[in-house]
Amino acid sequence: MASRGSGRQPKYQRIADELKAAIEAGEYGPGDRLPGENELMARHEVARMTARQALGVLQAEGLAEARKGAGVFVREFRPVRRRGVQRLSAGTWREGRSLWETDTAGRELAVEGVSVTEEEPPEDVAGTLRLDGGAPACVRRRRFVLDGRPVLAATSYLDAALVAGTAITEADTGPGGTYARLDEIGRAPVRFREEVRSRMPTAGETEQLGLAAGTPVVLVRRTAFTDDGRAVEVNDMVLDASAYVLEYDIEA
Amino acid sequence: MASRGSGRQPKYQRIADELKAAIEAGEYGPGDRLPGENELMARHEVARMTARQALGVLQAEGLAEARKGAGVFVREFRPVRRRGVQRLSAGTWREGRSLWETDTAGRELAVEGVSVTEEEPPEDVAGTLRLDGGAPACVRRRRFVLDGRPVLAATSYLDAALVAGTAITEADTGPGGTYARLDEIGRAPVRFREEVRSRMPTAGETEQLGLAAGTPVVLVRRTAFTDDGRAVEVNDMVLDASAYVLEYDIEA
Repeated sequence: MASRGSGRQPKYQRIADELKAAIEAGEYGPGDRLPGENELMARHEVARMTARQALGVLQAEGLAEARKGAGVFVREFRPVRRRGVQRLSAGTWREGRSLWETDTAGRELAVEGVSVTEEEPPEDVAGTLRLDGGAPACVRRRRFVLDGRPVLAATSYLDAALVAGTAITEADTGPGGTYARLDEIGRAPVRFREEVRSRMPTAGETEQLGLAAGTPVVLVRRTAFTDDGRAVEVNDMVLDASAYVLEYDIEA
Repeated sequence: MASRGSGRQPKYQRIADELKAAIEAGEYGPGDRLPGENELMARHEVARMTARQALGVLQAEGLAEARKGAGVFVREFRPVRRRGVQRLSAGTWREGRSLWETDTAGRELAVEGVSVTEEEPPEDVAGTLRLDGGAPACVRRRRFVLDGRPVLAATSYLDAALVAGTAITEADTGPGGTYARLDEIGRAPVRFREEVRSRMPTAGETEQLGLAAGTPVVLVRRTAFTDDGRAVEVNDMVLDASAYVLEYDIEA
């Protein structure tokens, strides 16, 4: 989704970009058939291989799928049903499963662009984590790509001194992820709070999540608490609103 | 919020509409001082009383507030912190409190436009409530106005045969509301599911909630279940996304 100079890019890429723009503008909706190779050849005066490559880009990015003998179609994206309660049960991470597996069973999930840094966190996060006097946080950033489509960007903050030496400071946190590692150092979360908001995306969020025009983002801030009531992680998530249903079960 | 012909309305109303448009466009942000009476008199060539009436409209609608000796300011709206778990505890309605009281303590809340009808519900709602063969639902519609600003529109569906003869079919459901009345007929909810989505509003929702441009809506569908696992109510809520933070507490 990086921006490119328009003059320098190969022809197939320009055709792919045009098709993507048409999909984003709603000219082709979910399940619609895209123009075939013959049509693209005539319309853009290119060779069959170029037309084929253009359609290949969209398939590689998960925006379209080929159906044998019928053509290439705009993918129908099923929203993720994110089960707020079940996914956070201690059973999930103690068994070495990721929270994501509970949401996306049978679908193709990639975690991209993982970065782990030490930074001074935003003031409100520092307050929640009780990081005083500019004490650094371990900051984990990553993006989740489902069926080829980026759907969520997450930034987690933890006390850098607390998690030093654990796999939380590495790109791969290992089976069960951050919560399993916190459990191993005696700081397992026992309670979570999720705060949910929605607004229109910033330009950066639109770029990062490849959002179609007119698509809001859902912001979820999850704070994980240990049994002494201390906040041990703050995770700021930005969700493509068109890709998600958030589900919460509540006892009366 | 009804649209009006521009020629027929009184001068103070036209000036108020201009000020409202400027607030919605962000020319005056939350906490900003609006033009005073003298300025409006000069700008619009009107009498002091007309300028005062125009500012009065904005105050009456909750968009602005007068501060003694300092002028009239755009109201700073605090988002509602909607506590998904605490508000739904049986204690709330058994004690005769409304769910809303737990969110909006100390603020001015009005429920407007209550309508109660019998209708065939949408197909998915009928399925959830197990209303077969066109059996009617009791449909309760209302709008919540907080500090003078509409923030939420709700439509509840219940089995009309089940709730016949209870106050659920009346505009005022009485202390503790619908759930307290269900309790009285032995159908108290013991579990709730909330499904949260977000999208840009329809024209009707923009009108109904008086949404500023570029403001998404949050859609919350709450389903209430009795102890035999039957769904007893489906409540479709449309929230002004700029007015809400939804909070959910979750045990690990």
